[in-house]
Amino acid sequence: MHAITKEKVAQAASILNEFDIDVWLTFVRETSASADPVLELIYSSDLTWQTALLIHRSGTHSILLGKFEEEAAKRLGIYQNVIPYHQSIRESLIASLDQMNPNRIAINYSLNDPHADGLTYGMFQALNEYLANTDYANKFVSAERIIAALRGRKTSAEIQRIRTAVQTTEKIYRDTFKRLRTGLSEIEVAQMMLAQVDAMGLETAWQRENCPAVNSGPASPVGHSGPTDILIEPGHLLHFDFGVKQAGYCSDIQRMAYVLRDGETAPPPEVLRGFDTIVMAIRAAFNAIRPGITGVEIDQIARNTVMISGFPEYMYATGHQLGRTVHDGAGILGPLWERYGDTPQYQLEANQVYTIEPGLEVPGYGYIGLEEDILVTSNGAEFISDPQTELVLISN
Amino acid sequence: MHAITKEKVAQAASILNEFDIDVWLTFVRETSASADPVLELIYSSDLTWQTALLIHRSGTHSILLGKFEEEAAKRLGIYQNVIPYHQSIRESLIASLDQMNPNRIAINYSLNDPHADGLTYGMFQALNEYLANTDYANKFVSAERIIAALRGRKTSAEIQRIRTAVQTTEKIYRDTFKRLRTGLSEIEVAQMMLAQVDAMGLETAWQRENCPAVNSGPASPVGHSGPTDILIEPGHLLHFDFGVKQAGYCSDIQRMAYVLRDGETAPPPEVLRGFDTIVMAIRAAFNAIRPGITGVEIDQIARNTVMISGFPEYMYATGHQLGRTVHDGAGILGPLWERYGDTPQYQLEANQVYTIEPGLEVPGYGYIGLEEDILVTSNGAEFISDPQTELVLISN
Repeated sequence: MHAITKEKVAQAASILNEFDIDVWLTFVRETSASADPVLELIYSSDLTWQTALLIHRSGTHSILLGKFEEEAAKRLGIYQNVIPYHQSIRESLIASLDQMNPNRIAINYSLNDPHADGLTYGMFQALNEYLANTDYANKFVSAERIIAALRGRKTSAEIQRIRTAVQTTEKIYRDTFKRLRTGLSEIEVAQMMLAQVDAMGLETAWQRENCPAVNSGPASPVGHSGPTDILIEPGHLLHFDFGVKQAGYCSDIQRMAYVLRDGETAPPPEVLRGFDTIVMAIRAAFNAIRPGITGVEIDQIARNTVMISGFPEYMYATGHQLGRTVHDGAGILGPLWERYGDTPQYQLEANQVYTIEPGLEVPGYGYIGLEEDILVTSNGAEFISDPQTELVLISN
Repeated sequence: MHAITKEKVAQAASILNEFDIDVWLTFVRETSASADPVLELIYSSDLTWQTALLIHRSGTHSILLGKFEEEAAKRLGIYQNVIPYHQSIRESLIASLDQMNPNRIAINYSLNDPHADGLTYGMFQALNEYLANTDYANKFVSAERIIAALRGRKTSAEIQRIRTAVQTTEKIYRDTFKRLRTGLSEIEVAQMMLAQVDAMGLETAWQRENCPAVNSGPASPVGHSGPTDILIEPGHLLHFDFGVKQAGYCSDIQRMAYVLRDGETAPPPEVLRGFDTIVMAIRAAFNAIRPGITGVEIDQIARNTVMISGFPEYMYATGHQLGRTVHDGAGILGPLWERYGDTPQYQLEANQVYTIEPGLEVPGYGYIGLEEDILVTSNGAEFISDPQTELVLISN
């Protein structure tokens, strides 16, 4: 993890130049209780007292922190300058800024992107108070573009870790599908999958209460609500949403099975039509992905594929970024709804990783959603997950 | 955990009346990436889209959240009103506030208390924008006193969980002390303790890189830097700082041992004098604790006991609250240093849990720090941990 942190701090300096920002200031405290989400990219330990992480466009960087964490910071060796204080950060903060003499200082707030919004309102006030007799508070700008670039543009080491998490997830799916049968409850299937996660010493990609999501049949509530006591029955569509966090990076994959009824050798036509619609929607979105296109354009392609097939519009974004966290912030493949802010209008960039996950309901059978993980390349995209193109069939 | 969450939401309403606040508004999004630290007290699942948790002094409460989390919220059954939205929270937020018609609305920001400072600057701006055509933004006040009371005043179920975590920690210490011998490294001793934590399926109270802290002898760096390859040798003071998180609640205890040299049957006088000073400092602070006294008064008692014995002043607070998190926010037993803000001036209250942890250096032998966990009672205090009053002696 440590090598990646150093890579990301170095990457940050070049991003500052690209956006003409002189200094990027991350200001945190008691990170074990409440961490700025960008911190894990640029430091690899908790910080207790008020701490300023300063990265300058020249490539120099400093950490100003409580005396008791000086030794830890020096041992980590990520920041060139480790500047401890006893009673207050005020003096060393002003001195460091004076030395850097910045015109534009990026700080971590964003209406759009939770991952770029780690500065709390109280810490923002504290910062303004510390800098009250200087001109620096007038030089604050949002770090959202810096953080979006830093988090989004994965290094090759980061991409490799995501690949590994995806492969692990696919293995768990394969093992689980072999053991599916009627009469098992959603909860029992989820426990089967979690047992494999635990046996490998891994974590789930999101909270284990609803990772995996398992939905069997038309009565199962879809969303972030966790598996139920509903039993797998013939004629059910089985929907899974699942991912792991492995070596600090996440996967996020949805898969589909159908439970054959007596005498059936294939799913009913309406089920197949629904499944094929989702496969097509993913393929159409995937084919359009390239650097420079916006998320809303990709969203519309997948969304329209579902709607022109006569299914109702799904009420969520077609995809999101994937990385350290399962919803990895910044630009999304989404519609222009108020709750997504500007993020659907961000352009896609090479080395970003996205999910594509349209969905629809087949009345009487259940929910159909597939989710693939893809990498944006210099001129298009490649699948990281192995796309599902056929329904898994469970015999009764 | 679920029953405690309901208890805390009910407790919140009575605290609102005490502080004459009409509505307490917690406003969050993507809590798996960045959670408001108070959220775990008042909800028991992650929340993805912008979500408002509204608690009214009358005891009614509502959660306004993304449609896909409606089912989870209803199943949890913590909030009376579960109000889902598809595209934007704006309308339901204004409608809910209109219905509650508040004069004072508490929101989660604080210069002093990281645990009451969960509202990000971007979310603060979003809130102001949503409420731009209303008068509600003028009614905002800090929720820091509400959160301090809610987090600080433990229910009996919460106190019981802390007791259990403390007992587990003491058991791990006892088992570890039996196995200490010269030639083991700090890292090996830490691994011994972590193996016990893992075998019980628990977590450490803070990040496992430096939980436990293990310091052997005068060359070992004290602070948040983690154990080293330094070997236990005769004549070393051995210092431990360690806690577990069990059923959601933390312990935090420091313990001391001394490694006898050839021919020694007791520690040298300067070591004993240092140890007794710390025991006395803890006892003096403990004896003064009662509801109504301020944290800085308790801090001064312990601090002065160390300084009048001729040892240098320790450069940190004498104690902090303990609960869901190991540094549980709000009032501390600390000096009036800028980095502690107002928090040393908060009055102690019944059913709060604090650590007491003075420290000093004995040149040539190492660091001496003890840490006990105590409960503030209606007229004094009681120890939750079993206070150490004698150095553990390790034979060579």
